[in-house]
Parts: sequence; structure tokens; C-alpha cells
Amino acid sequence: MQSLDTLASPPEAVSLVGVDWGTTQRRVYALSSGGALLRQQADADGALACKNRFAESLGAALLALQAHPTTVVLSGMVGSALGWVPVPYLDDHVALRDLPAHLHAVPRAVGQPPALIVPGYCLRDAHGQPDVMRGEETQLLGALLLGHGDGWFVLPGTHSKWVQLHAGRVVALRTYMTGELFDLLGRHGTLAAAAGTEAAPWDDGAFQDGLESAQHGALGQQLFGVRARVVCGDMPAAHARAYLSGLLIGAELHDVLRHSNGAAGAQSICLIGTPALAQHYLAAAAPLQMRFEVLDAQRAYVRALAHFQTSLGTP
Amino acid sequence: MQSLDTLASPPEAVSLVGVDWGTTQRRVYALSSGGALLRQQADADGALACKNRFAESLGAALLALQAHPTTVVLSGMVGSALGWVPVPYLDDHVALRDLPAHLHAVPRAVGQPPALIVPGYCLRDAHGQPDVMRGEETQLLGALLLGHGDGWFVLPGTHSKWVQLHAGRVVALRTYMTGELFDLLGRHGTLAAAAGTEAAPWDDGAFQDGLESAQHGALGQQLFGVRARVVCGDMPAAHARAYLSGLLIGAELHDVLRHSNGAAGAQSICLIGTPALAQHYLAAAAPLQMRFEVLDAQRAYVRALAHFQTSLGTP
Repeated sequence: MQSLDTLASPPEAVSLVGVDWGTTQRRVYALSSGGALLRQQADADGALACKNRFAESLGAALLALQAHPTTVVLSGMVGSALGWVPVPYLDDHVALRDLPAHLHAVPRAVGQPPALIVPGYCLRDAHGQPDVMRGEETQLLGALLLGHGDGWFVLPGTHSKWVQLHAGRVVALRTYMTGELFDLLGRHGTLAAAAGTEAAPWDDGAFQDGLESAQHGALGQQLFGVRARVVCGDMPAAHARAYLSGLLIGAELHDVLRHSNGAAGAQSICLIGTPALAQHYLAAAAPLQMRFEVLDAQRAYVRALAHFQTSLGTP
Repeated sequence: MQSLDTLASPPEAVSLVGVDWGTTQRRVYALSSGGALLRQQADADGALACKNRFAESLGAALLALQAHPTTVVLSGMVGSALGWVPVPYLDDHVALRDLPAHLHAVPRAVGQPPALIVPGYCLRDAHGQPDVMRGEETQLLGALLLGHGDGWFVLPGTHSKWVQLHAGRVVALRTYMTGELFDLLGRHGTLAAAAGTEAAPWDDGAFQDGLESAQHGALGQQLFGVRARVVCGDMPAAHARAYLSGLLIGAELHDVLRHSNGAAGAQSICLIGTPALAQHYLAAAAPLQMRFEVLDAQRAYVRALAHFQTSLGTP
């Protein structure tokens, strides 16, 4: 009689683990030697929560996924001054496909798999102003490998990143604090008071009104309109959050169109994100004649991990 | 022998008390029958703190000032939905000098001096968007009576109000959340983290850099530059607050110039505020060829109170 052990096919061995290690959240992906996603988990062990215990936290994540990888690749805020090891930014000379040659090895205890941090990018605009990203470069690499070439990309979120790729290089980067402003203004101060505390259903009309208002003035002035519309009876308090969202996303899209001289509107833009994040950008795009093509962020990330795996010769 | 009581001249009787009753702060002014300021006090019994006890709080303030006025005039958030009695906004048909005919009497207990609330204004822009003020109308009336006629006025603060007066009427109103954004972003989130927690001396150069950056893009994008400049080593963390201030005030001034078609730059602007508040606007004005004439907010307020006193025939 065969034992049950031999009847059940053994779990495929994990070759590489990738960690998308953000400020407050973390996603861990376990890949087979062929680059297929075997298992994943998400938790709240972000860089802030892991201060001084990154090695322990990584060990716990590997244990939870029953993963004994040959290599671990880390990206995101784990490489910032608030992270495990501060990794210097790359500049626009380094092509995305060449990222495997620029990984930063973290000192590890004997017997631990090597952990390699993907560096972020720092770019400067025509006025010499810097802008930075950490983590998004890995998703952009994945997008590139999945056939998304030259053009504009947006990675919405707490900090919405607009990136222009040309010949495999990052040539422009603009970060908008859209998500963070929505969160801060929804929780503190005058606009939070105007919106009230009751959970209200999302109102699409109010979102479109916010989009419309965004084109009429600077954000610092249009924001007060959230309160003015409520106290003047133009809008119920329950619509304030949707209106604020439309205002912030509208301000972002108008500025992108202005600063790309319309280029970001003339061609389809690759939006790398979750379906939930993409939804509001898609609703905002239509009246502005912008077109988004949505690429699942996780699919892009796993594709990039497979590129690291191949480039590093990970068994 | 004369008693000491008759040797000391008796305190001049208080005729009118005016209260500039804001959201979190309150200033109480006691005027003589000739409209001279006799005494004043400031405290933290703002509208939020006074919920359901406005009458008691006013009584305590009168007692503290040893004032037994014939009339009390209240302005500011005391007339809002969060205040003592919600007083409807006026529209631009009502001239500032006619405000005494639009005061709203608060029901009072027998024996208490009448309390009259000054209504605020609601104006709409060319797109039909509303904007509102409460409290500023009283200072604007005072400015008008002190000889500041047609033109632009700015009342900086938590919500910076830009007002255009023409023939004694408010014809344009734009509110910028400059002060509130500075406060929120300095206390919460990414920019607060970039600025660090150490109390740092103000840096004028960083303030000017912020002003300069404000012209290069939308606020939602330039704000992230505060962090980018710190992490890229362009700016020490200790300069982040001054840079942020320059960015916010610069965005405000650029938008005002744009929306007034330069009119707000061609002529002198009357800034109604405290010297401390005026300081940063004056520093921001020079590179933009804007000129501010500073009018002390308290002086304007007291002048308006004297107008109410005369118009009401207060003994």
C-alpha cells in the first residue's frame, strides 16, 4: 500500500521570494523555479512597523509561506532611510531591464538566503526639481516585459506616480499626493467636518462635479469649495467625499495633461494598479478624452520577479 | 478728607461690546460711547468649545471685562451652523455699510443686553461655485471706513480670504486653505515625517525656494517635492517647513494673479491681518511684483464696531 505522502504530489519548491515592502503594507510572493507564482500573502508588517527587526520579520514571512528560497528580492520603502538598509537612488541612465545588475545585498546571518534590495529612481525635471520612486520601478519593469513599451504610465495610490518610459528608460516622473491628501483631508480639519462622520454611499454625480470643478482653479482654493458647497446647500454633506475625490483626481489629470503638452491624452496610458484603484481614474478619464489600459499590479510585479530570477541565475 | 474712591477717576462706561468669535479663538472688545477701545481680551472659548453654552460664555466674558454694555455685536463662526444661532448668508447685493440693517438678534433672557450677530456673505463665481465668509465682512467694513476703497483685499489665516470690493460691495471672493494645509501637512503624513520633529529655525532661503517652485506645477505635485528634496539631499529636513510655507503661499498668489487677470498685481492690495501673519505675504510679494499695504486687523474691527454703534444709536 502506498503511503498518503507519496500519493499527494509534493508541493513545488520555492525558488525565489519577492517582497513588495511598503511603508505600512507588505506583499510576499513565492515563485517556482519556472517563474510561476506558487503562494502569496499580504500583511501589515510595513517598513514603519518593522523598525530594527527586518530580518526577523522576513524570516516569519518565509515560514508562513513554507518557503525556503534560494534568493529573496525586496523592493519599496524597505530600501529607504526608514527601511532595512538605505539604498541610493538610481538616475535615468540605468535602463529598467538592467535593474538586476544594481541590486543591493543586505548583510545576512550565515545560512540565510541572500536578500537583495531593488533600488529606486531619482529623476529631475527641467527646473532641476527632484522626484523619487521606490517600488514602482519593479512594477514598471514588469509592465515593460509584458509588452508595454514607450509612453506614459500611472501607478495610483497614496502617492500617484506618473512615469514616462522611452527606450526602456524612465525619462519623466511626477508624483501627486492625491491619495494622501484624500486621506488627510477626510480625517482632519474643515473638510472632514463638512463631510460629517456618517458612512455615506458613493455618489458618482458628486465625483463628476468634483472633476468639473478641478479645471476652474488651483487646488488650495477649490478644496474650500467642498465646505462652501455644503454650507450653501449646493451639495449634501454625504456627497463631500466623492466630490473631494473627483477634485483631487481631476487636479492630477489636468496637471499631467498640461505638463505633458497633451501627450498623455493623445495616447493610451498604462494604469498599473488594482481594479479598485483603477475604477476612479477610469471614471475621470472619459470627460478628459484620456484613455487608460489597466494592467494588474500583481501580474506586473511577478513578471519582474521572474526577470530577476533569470538574470541572477537563481536555481 | 476725600476718600480714595473719589480721587481715582471712575472707569469710563462700556457702551458696546464686540466679539470676534471664531471656530477656536475669540476676541472681545469693549468700546466707550465715543467708539474708543477701552478694554479687550482674547481666550480659547471659540464656537466649537462653546457648544450649548454660548449665553453663559458671553456672560463670563462681560464679567471678566467688567462690562455692562447696552448692546453686544457678534461676528464670525458664532453665526454658523456650529455656532449660537445659524444666520443666513447675505449675497453681493448688500453693501458693507448696510450691514447694521441686517444684524440677527439672538433670543436673550430678560435683563441681558441684546446680542446681534453680523451675517456673513456667500458669493458665486462665474462658474456658479459658491464661496463664503463669516467674520471677515466686519473687518472689511472697518477697512472701507478707514479709507480703503475699491480694490483687492486679503485676510490671511487658516483660510486665506481674497476679496474684491467695488463701490462698497463685495464683488469677488476666493478662499484658499493655505493655513489649514500648512497645519495639517506639518502634523500628519509624509511631509511631517520628512520635516522631522525637531524645532528648527525659519530659513528665508527655503521659503523663497518654495515660492519659486510654486510656479512650476500643481500643488498636489509640488507638495511631494518637499519630501523629494529632503531624501535627495537638496534640502535639509530642518528647512522643510519654510519651503512648504513658500510653496503654499506661492500657489495662492499665483492663482490670484491668474484669476484676477493680473489686476491684483497691478495695484496695491490691502492686507488685513496681524503683523506676524503679514510677514510671510510681504516676503512672498516682492518677487511677484505684488504690493501689500498692511492694515491692522484689530484696528479695522474696532472701526466697524463704532459704525454699528452709531448706526444702531447705541447710547
